[in-house]
Amino acid sequence: MNIPALENVAKTLRSLSVDAIEAANSGHPGLPMGMAEFGAWLYGEVLKHNPANPHWMNRDRFVLSAGHGSMFLYSLLHLSGYELPLEELKAFRQLDSLTPGHPERGHTAGVETTTGPLGQGFANAVGMAIAREFTAAKFNTAEHPIIDHHVYTLAGDGCLMEGISSEAASLAGHLKLGSLVAFYDSNSISIEGSTELAFTEQVAGRFESFGWQVLEADPYDFASMDKALTAALADIDRPSLIILPSVIGKGAPTKAGSHSVHGAPLGAEERQGFRQAMGIPADGDFYIADGVSEYFAGKRKEWQAAEESWDALFEQWSSANPALRTQWDQWHAGIDAVALEELALPEYEAGSATATRASSGKVLQVLAERFTNLLGGSADLAPSNKSDIISETDFSAENRVGRNFHFGVREHAMGAVVNGMALYGGLRVYAATFLVFSDYMRPAIRLAALMKLPVTYIFTHDSIFVGEDGPTHQPIEHLAVLRAIPGLDVLRPADGAECNEAWKYALKRKDGPSVLSLSRQGLTEFDKPEGWRENFARGAYAVLDIDGEGELTVIIATGSELSVALDAGRRYASDGKRVRVVSMPCRDAFLRQDRAYIASVIPAGSRVFAAEAGISMGWEIFTGSADRVLSIDRFGLSAPGKKAAEALGLTADRLYALMNE
Amino acid sequence: MNIPALENVAKTLRSLSVDAIEAANSGHPGLPMGMAEFGAWLYGEVLKHNPANPHWMNRDRFVLSAGHGSMFLYSLLHLSGYELPLEELKAFRQLDSLTPGHPERGHTAGVETTTGPLGQGFANAVGMAIAREFTAAKFNTAEHPIIDHHVYTLAGDGCLMEGISSEAASLAGHLKLGSLVAFYDSNSISIEGSTELAFTEQVAGRFESFGWQVLEADPYDFASMDKALTAALADIDRPSLIILPSVIGKGAPTKAGSHSVHGAPLGAEERQGFRQAMGIPADGDFYIADGVSEYFAGKRKEWQAAEESWDALFEQWSSANPALRTQWDQWHAGIDAVALEELALPEYEAGSATATRASSGKVLQVLAERFTNLLGGSADLAPSNKSDIISETDFSAENRVGRNFHFGVREHAMGAVVNGMALYGGLRVYAATFLVFSDYMRPAIRLAALMKLPVTYIFTHDSIFVGEDGPTHQPIEHLAVLRAIPGLDVLRPADGAECNEAWKYALKRKDGPSVLSLSRQGLTEFDKPEGWRENFARGAYAVLDIDGEGELTVIIATGSELSVALDAGRRYASDGKRVRVVSMPCRDAFLRQDRAYIASVIPAGSRVFAAEAGISMGWEIFTGSADRVLSIDRFGLSAPGKKAAEALGLTADRLYALMNE
Repeated sequence: MNIPALENVAKTLRSLSVDAIEAANSGHPGLPMGMAEFGAWLYGEVLKHNPANPHWMNRDRFVLSAGHGSMFLYSLLHLSGYELPLEELKAFRQLDSLTPGHPERGHTAGVETTTGPLGQGFANAVGMAIAREFTAAKFNTAEHPIIDHHVYTLAGDGCLMEGISSEAASLAGHLKLGSLVAFYDSNSISIEGSTELAFTEQVAGRFESFGWQVLEADPYDFASMDKALTAALADIDRPSLIILPSVIGKGAPTKAGSHSVHGAPLGAEERQGFRQAMGIPADGDFYIADGVSEYFAGKRKEWQAAEESWDALFEQWSSANPALRTQWDQWHAGIDAVALEELALPEYEAGSATATRASSGKVLQVLAERFTNLLGGSADLAPSNKSDIISETDFSAENRVGRNFHFGVREHAMGAVVNGMALYGGLRVYAATFLVFSDYMRPAIRLAALMKLPVTYIFTHDSIFVGEDGPTHQPIEHLAVLRAIPGLDVLRPADGAECNEAWKYALKRKDGPSVLSLSRQGLTEFDKPEGWRENFARGAYAVLDIDGEGELTVIIATGSELSVALDAGRRYASDGKRVRVVSMPCRDAFLRQDRAYIASVIPAGSRVFAAEAGISMGWEIFTGSADRVLSIDRFGLSAPGKKAAEALGLTADRLYALMNE
Repeated sequence: MNIPALENVAKTLRSLSVDAIEAANSGHPGLPMGMAEFGAWLYGEVLKHNPANPHWMNRDRFVLSAGHGSMFLYSLLHLSGYELPLEELKAFRQLDSLTPGHPERGHTAGVETTTGPLGQGFANAVGMAIAREFTAAKFNTAEHPIIDHHVYTLAGDGCLMEGISSEAASLAGHLKLGSLVAFYDSNSISIEGSTELAFTEQVAGRFESFGWQVLEADPYDFASMDKALTAALADIDRPSLIILPSVIGKGAPTKAGSHSVHGAPLGAEERQGFRQAMGIPADGDFYIADGVSEYFAGKRKEWQAAEESWDALFEQWSSANPALRTQWDQWHAGIDAVALEELALPEYEAGSATATRASSGKVLQVLAERFTNLLGGSADLAPSNKSDIISETDFSAENRVGRNFHFGVREHAMGAVVNGMALYGGLRVYAATFLVFSDYMRPAIRLAALMKLPVTYIFTHDSIFVGEDGPTHQPIEHLAVLRAIPGLDVLRPADGAECNEAWKYALKRKDGPSVLSLSRQGLTEFDKPEGWRENFARGAYAVLDIDGEGELTVIIATGSELSVALDAGRRYASDGKRVRVVSMPCRDAFLRQDRAYIASVIPAGSRVFAAEAGISMGWEIFTGSADRVLSIDRFGLSAPGKKAAEALGLTADRLYALMNE
């Protein structure tokens, strides 16, 4: 360990962070300054990575959970050799720069996940460690341990106050994720002041109760950190938390240790004091200390050699295990759309009734058999969500190849953990709960959409037809508010055959998450027109056309309301009127179609109605008025499903009446 | 303690629960059966309450956090004498009964809060304990301790797995809420099976780390529970967790202790076995054991006497402390709308610029001075949210009269804690964070709306004008998805004067929560027409009318986009066109107006545009098409606010261009 070099890296990290934030007149210097020695040590001495190839599969993952400290990450990515020129640091937080205010995955090389909303990164790291264990168990052989890296994260007080980190830590301890090491920047400062104001729990005791090894080190003493890390890595049966009692903004002459340095530039005067104390020239903007470049140049050679040596190991493993290698390649190529189309999916007789959650469970078995990287679980509702892969085992501390996950009643962590698993590479993940509890995991779903992760959500019990459980368990606004998230596609299949297509749609997506909104109650299989499967993927298609007098009346419906629309439509047609019923399993996809397709489904000038067991918001775009939407714009009520639907007016009778108004 | 009577109450609780669930063919027998002795003891021997007056202010509060066990509560409410006849138990989970699937506050006498979504009730109880401490500190005198009750909750494994309960427990320990006692039904069973599958943390250690006293008792041994409770009540400096290792579904001959009894009726055969084992007649539907009625009849006399004795104490206190009594009455009468109208609120010069978060901070000071029961806090963002009452102190373990709350970075618990404070009675509460983080507290906001609690949310940094922090911190879909919650009113004031009115609107509400969506950046004070204040409360009003040629073009805008609309509108008018600009601070309120008012603001046949820094969904109801909405239907980006707005097309230029298309 070259301590003088590391000290210079730390000094440089402070300098770059202070200057970038000063230039932007915006940002958070507290973390990069307080954690500068740690950062130097982490990127120089700890991480097994190769900045020349940020996608190396056996790299250590590092997640900056405290994403507001983004200049910590950008400085280190720049210095260690990732594709992040100094000019980009100078353009910190500016339009189109590679250095946005919070780290964004897919935008900046070396950023493993998008962070900023607190606690999310910590839970992503838990997901990465799960994926690492699964991948290692699946592919490693005694001779060729191709996956042996670690997962690191840096969390602050804010991350550890959030409930999501408790959920994720409890799960990590339960699963004995020994490859996970979390560093805790314990600077005792939050935005409102000292953590004494709100956060006086014993974090060490909490994590020990979760089954973690808890260690402490001095973040300004490299040997101390080394010692703690050695102990952390030695314990392969427990995740480790290394507490680093730190001084926020260390190096700022008057503001260090105070909340004034957390989230605002130092200011000219304080910066001068900082430079003076550090021995940085008064005009040393974006100063890089002596020896830093040389230090990392040397490291880059070592890292390159390490990856090359791994490449050789990987080739040996490939030769010795060709079947595994084929599987590895398949997993990393993503879902094979041709193979997907060739699968024999469940068939349903017209007129038979199946709950779409049950149809989903059936098709899942076929998909999981063919795509062995498809895996996931439920937040303690698997028997209701029908989300288990029946032929597979449970993932656990003892069984790392299980593909069924028991996330516990921890919806929020589940959302962020599956994000981490998806980020890891090679896996297709799903997460299941009741639709109404999607609210609990909403921040994680938003991040999946922002990161364009192809996660699949199995959200069952998708309407007031939940029945007796009542308003707390009956989704009302949930379909609308999930559709509201940019990039998230919500699919609400109307029967078993549509459910097959919904799953195919979700698995074909490469650039974003999908919701499968599934019924608790049985839905009747309806007759489909020719070519419907192709049009399903376009979001909507006509399922019934009856000729008659006058203008065309179109009824759009999703999921369980398609039968309501068909009923009302047939009755209306029997009055001699011209009617079309449209199944719209995916409003998001339909709105992305060209005008010609849209007009072919909903001809211009037609009178349009919509039916969905939820709020009307979002349907007026087709109907022109809320009066033409059969919706539920209030909370539900506890009663058997059909009675609830009648009381709430969600019936073919009412739709027919609306059509005659 | 009459143990034979309590045993009969327990037997009856089991019997009523089993039969009600069997009759409904739906429900959760596991908890009421497993906790039957505890329930008998709690309602018979522990709670200081008076079923004849569920609103007695010094009653103990009991929250069934594990709301799925609703028959536990309904059985005990019925037996102890609340207004809940046996017929209602027989109509469990049926339309219009007083016994919905999960307990609903305001629907059934004696139900303190609506529960079902796990962890919420636990956090509500923390809020009630905070309110209890605040109220006691405010009103108790050495001679007349009018508030001396306790707050109890029963939580299950599911509640304690949820992150919200960790957040709330950490806060409760920090605040040393000695009046709070949580019972933990530790039955080791969740829906997927044994808690060993997902939940092996040491709950006791976790709560000790949070600063709680942790005790254990046998839920089938009254003396054991008494002993633990005595210790819990003796420790006035710590909340207490009493762990009750239980057998789920105890009394079910073959299903007890298994997850099959958690959430499904016993079935005819199992019920017969249960009745046989318990000595209940084979045809004993809704069996009530001997002595139970007499036992509770005796208790009711004691409870009535206790309340009468408290009434006397309260009258003595009133005589001795008339000023306090006046304040007490004012607090419980709710916000005085006349007094509110008479207040001298901040004034703003036309053309001056103020961020509405700053305007909110200013008006809050005036409101808080007049309404001394107005209190709240932030999830560690008070300096940014401007949510502190500057002349008041912080609520803490040492200072129970503080009105500023440091909730810590715990948005979800904050949401549920303020619900608990609002439920307590006499208080007007607010909670603050960034608008984008409303996602973290969404399940609690939904429950506030379902319970019709007049909570106020201060959500600042309400658009992409957050700027540099980037997409993780820029709300896009949040205004739409908050409006989507039934009963929640979203207010987005366009300047300081509108901000005053928004606060007045929120405080006048008695039947639901309000969101104040506030800007980070300065907004220019605009000229108002006569009578605008009255029309503000109707949700929208015209602020600019310029005569011209052709059809009328109306531009609707909210908050910071009003200036964009005014710009574009004036430019369009300068082309000779007829233009109106409408400020719509509350879309929810406007849509509730009669057709005449709506048509007076947006005349039929006009060409309508809308402008808001968020998704277009919900605006087509006015504009008829998404093409006429100046919106942002993608995630934001990191750049200074104005640059971000330009890059995202949120400008008067683009609106003007849309108007000319």
